[in-house]
Amino acid sequence: MAQKLEKITQRDEDFSKWYTDVVKNAGLADYGPVKGTMIFKPYGYAIWENIMKIADKMFKEVNVENVYFPLLIPASLFNKEKEHIEGFAPELATVTKVGDKSLGEELYIRPTSEVLICTHFAKEVKSYRDLPLIYNQWTNVMRWEKTTRPFLRTSEFLWQEGHTIHSTPKEAKEMTLTIFEIYKKLANDFLLLPVISGRKTEKEKFAGAKETYSIEALMYDGQALQSGTSHYFGDNFAKAFNIKFQNKEQKEEYAYSTSWGVSTRLIGAIIMSHSDDQGLVLPSKIAPIQIQIININESDDVLEISNQLKNDLKNDFRVFVDNTDKSFGYKISEAEIKGVPIRIEVGPRDIANGVVTISRRDIRNKEQVKINEVKEYVNKQILEHDKNIFNIALNNLNSRTFKANTIEEYQEILENKQGLVLVPFCGDIDCENDIKEKTQTNSRCIPDNVEHKKSKCFNCKRDSDKLVYFARAY
Amino acid sequence: MAQKLEKITQRDEDFSKWYTDVVKNAGLADYGPVKGTMIFKPYGYAIWENIMKIADKMFKEVNVENVYFPLLIPASLFNKEKEHIEGFAPELATVTKVGDKSLGEELYIRPTSEVLICTHFAKEVKSYRDLPLIYNQWTNVMRWEKTTRPFLRTSEFLWQEGHTIHSTPKEAKEMTLTIFEIYKKLANDFLLLPVISGRKTEKEKFAGAKETYSIEALMYDGQALQSGTSHYFGDNFAKAFNIKFQNKEQKEEYAYSTSWGVSTRLIGAIIMSHSDDQGLVLPSKIAPIQIQIININESDDVLEISNQLKNDLKNDFRVFVDNTDKSFGYKISEAEIKGVPIRIEVGPRDIANGVVTISRRDIRNKEQVKINEVKEYVNKQILEHDKNIFNIALNNLNSRTFKANTIEEYQEILENKQGLVLVPFCGDIDCENDIKEKTQTNSRCIPDNVEHKKSKCFNCKRDSDKLVYFARAY
Repeated sequence: MAQKLEKITQRDEDFSKWYTDVVKNAGLADYGPVKGTMIFKPYGYAIWENIMKIADKMFKEVNVENVYFPLLIPASLFNKEKEHIEGFAPELATVTKVGDKSLGEELYIRPTSEVLICTHFAKEVKSYRDLPLIYNQWTNVMRWEKTTRPFLRTSEFLWQEGHTIHSTPKEAKEMTLTIFEIYKKLANDFLLLPVISGRKTEKEKFAGAKETYSIEALMYDGQALQSGTSHYFGDNFAKAFNIKFQNKEQKEEYAYSTSWGVSTRLIGAIIMSHSDDQGLVLPSKIAPIQIQIININESDDVLEISNQLKNDLKNDFRVFVDNTDKSFGYKISEAEIKGVPIRIEVGPRDIANGVVTISRRDIRNKEQVKINEVKEYVNKQILEHDKNIFNIALNNLNSRTFKANTIEEYQEILENKQGLVLVPFCGDIDCENDIKEKTQTNSRCIPDNVEHKKSKCFNCKRDSDKLVYFARAY
Repeated sequence: MAQKLEKITQRDEDFSKWYTDVVKNAGLADYGPVKGTMIFKPYGYAIWENIMKIADKMFKEVNVENVYFPLLIPASLFNKEKEHIEGFAPELATVTKVGDKSLGEELYIRPTSEVLICTHFAKEVKSYRDLPLIYNQWTNVMRWEKTTRPFLRTSEFLWQEGHTIHSTPKEAKEMTLTIFEIYKKLANDFLLLPVISGRKTEKEKFAGAKETYSIEALMYDGQALQSGTSHYFGDNFAKAFNIKFQNKEQKEEYAYSTSWGVSTRLIGAIIMSHSDDQGLVLPSKIAPIQIQIININESDDVLEISNQLKNDLKNDFRVFVDNTDKSFGYKISEAEIKGVPIRIEVGPRDIANGVVTISRRDIRNKEQVKINEVKEYVNKQILEHDKNIFNIALNNLNSRTFKANTIEEYQEILENKQGLVLVPFCGDIDCENDIKEKTQTNSRCIPDNVEHKKSKCFNCKRDSDKLVYFARAY
């Protein structure tokens, strides 16, 4: 393990190589045999399980019901919503045969399930009494990507996709925003990712949506990462899929739909926000192991205290004791590289003094703590650990947030620094395409916590009534 | 709803139609747009979520770790294990292109993941220290089927597939049997399905396995349903995929692997074992709603008692109060058809007498219970409900288990009755193929709780040293 540790590239030296080194050495993932696919190893998948549990609980509190829709979508269905098919066509993995037999119609592996679920909604929804339907599914989806990286961008990924249908635009918009708030809470409180949040521009909104809201985290290297999106479709999909209902006045109306998702990208965001040269640093709420107890030897005294501590802590924390014949040093390195928030070392000399040695992963300290005070100490330190890693990420976000009023100022920031740049922007698609061409950057969002004023667009100089974040992004 | 209820075909009149009526009217599932696929609606998926939770907990208690492997398998990998590809070839959905571009190699949608996971094991496993690896994944898989029915047989289905690799045959066999015991417990204690269990014959074992163990439930109509299988591969896959490790004596050895799975078929088994002419009957441990409270009107008194009961019960049970403007009768019908184990009706006249009316779904009784005794009463009745439905299924199994010593006796049973028939069988593949041709039935398993004696095969009359269950099966 010591050897493996040495292979981690320094983060400031080569961020991209550091990232793949951490993913590999922490045992999170491996590459699949098909280009652009990945294998979630147990430690990586356990993080996703914890994220799923947290998000699923919050969804169920707002009456979301889980469902499962088929993997394959007939091409004819997909073609019903024009913007949607245009957005996804080049990325669609296509099933054309079964065994030796060609299929009558080509079938796409879902890149997202709006078209399937809207087809079902059209059958289910007859009266206002049938509304709303608030569905979610935890699934795999495929979008064939040219450049891929574990967790961040892979041809197949895991996510949740929510799909809802409502009787009024107001209720559908509220649903979009309720989930948007849940995503903010998930990022801030559980993943310890300070995010900027707001509506997407015309160019960046989802294929077929009227409005897209997104949360965007800033990585250690100053690039943004879209971390969750919630879409309001108005009656776009209802019209394309003929989802009508009889309202209280017995009149037929189109319904209003939303969709929203977060994916295994979040694991990439966590790694690139919190981790360091020694490997992973994990928010305690999603860490598969919160406390690791490491015994210096196998003497009766050591095993007794180790067991006692495990029993004291295991009801409140996910505790792991590695009983393999790996060396003490190896186990310490492994706990570090895997980002275990709290490490407790139990050794004979410490025990004789009535103490054990405790380290926090974020600050890598060593503190001797009385055995009967361990529980209290750990309870406090795990909160401090989380507070500290949130603040480090927040400092990074704050120190890398800039303003610009002209394209020249913007380009200068891009050349010398990396981060989010708040600019007055007209909102026009052609203007944003022009900015993309000049700078290879996109808008991130129209922030919801900023005072928007009338001004001139930083690029085209036409009137602008809003400030927008632009940045390089993953 | 009353109308919908009337549409359920009587179970004894047309079992197959009854089944699809129940699936539809209880809101469990719908058909997908691609032939042979299905949609899990919220109520159906909630049953699966409960099954997953129970099984996942039992797996984790025996050190199973969850993972996720890619959906697509390159054709070249699949062809490495000969029996395996022969078993699956005609059912493989095949991706040949992405967007407009043809792929260099055809990719199969996984029908099961042995080949992907064994390819990974070959990379991961170097020393005895790396073993065992005990993996499981909860995923979708595809096997293109000609005749399909919701839950029982669909082109795409949800399941868990465990895959493990060990340093000795003994340890791998123990793993196979540990999971086999978990499957029996899942069926017996949680799904309330009495099962017969044992090893599969040569003909019926899994493609590539040395031994397959299975649990088999008997449906109400007397047909068997394979409900879970656990496979021991010996070093078959290790040799095909070159999974070698250095043992403690520094010598290279092949490793030993297992795989095992249960799927959403279990929901089909539950329906066909427990349900009746009024709709679903559900084991309480997997019922999405365990207790439904139905208010006769919206008066303050009724709402107060209803809320009080909900608060008293909600920590121990999954309680649902339907607050929609559906009629009282509609809500009662719906609770019945959805198989809610306990229904509590709260009405003004009852309240005046200090009681509420409680019904058990299995016996459809009506009992007046003092309000302050509801909790105690419900606790007891829900156990009785479960005990009763288990016993009904057990009686069905016992009364439909037969013996035969000749093919003529066997054929007579098949003509006049339906059920499991225990026969002395030689175990030969050709003989079993011959039986299949004569009777359109397969062996189910070589039971593990029966005294096996030397005798003559019921079909070919050669020596037989075991008794085997044969039956019609789904």
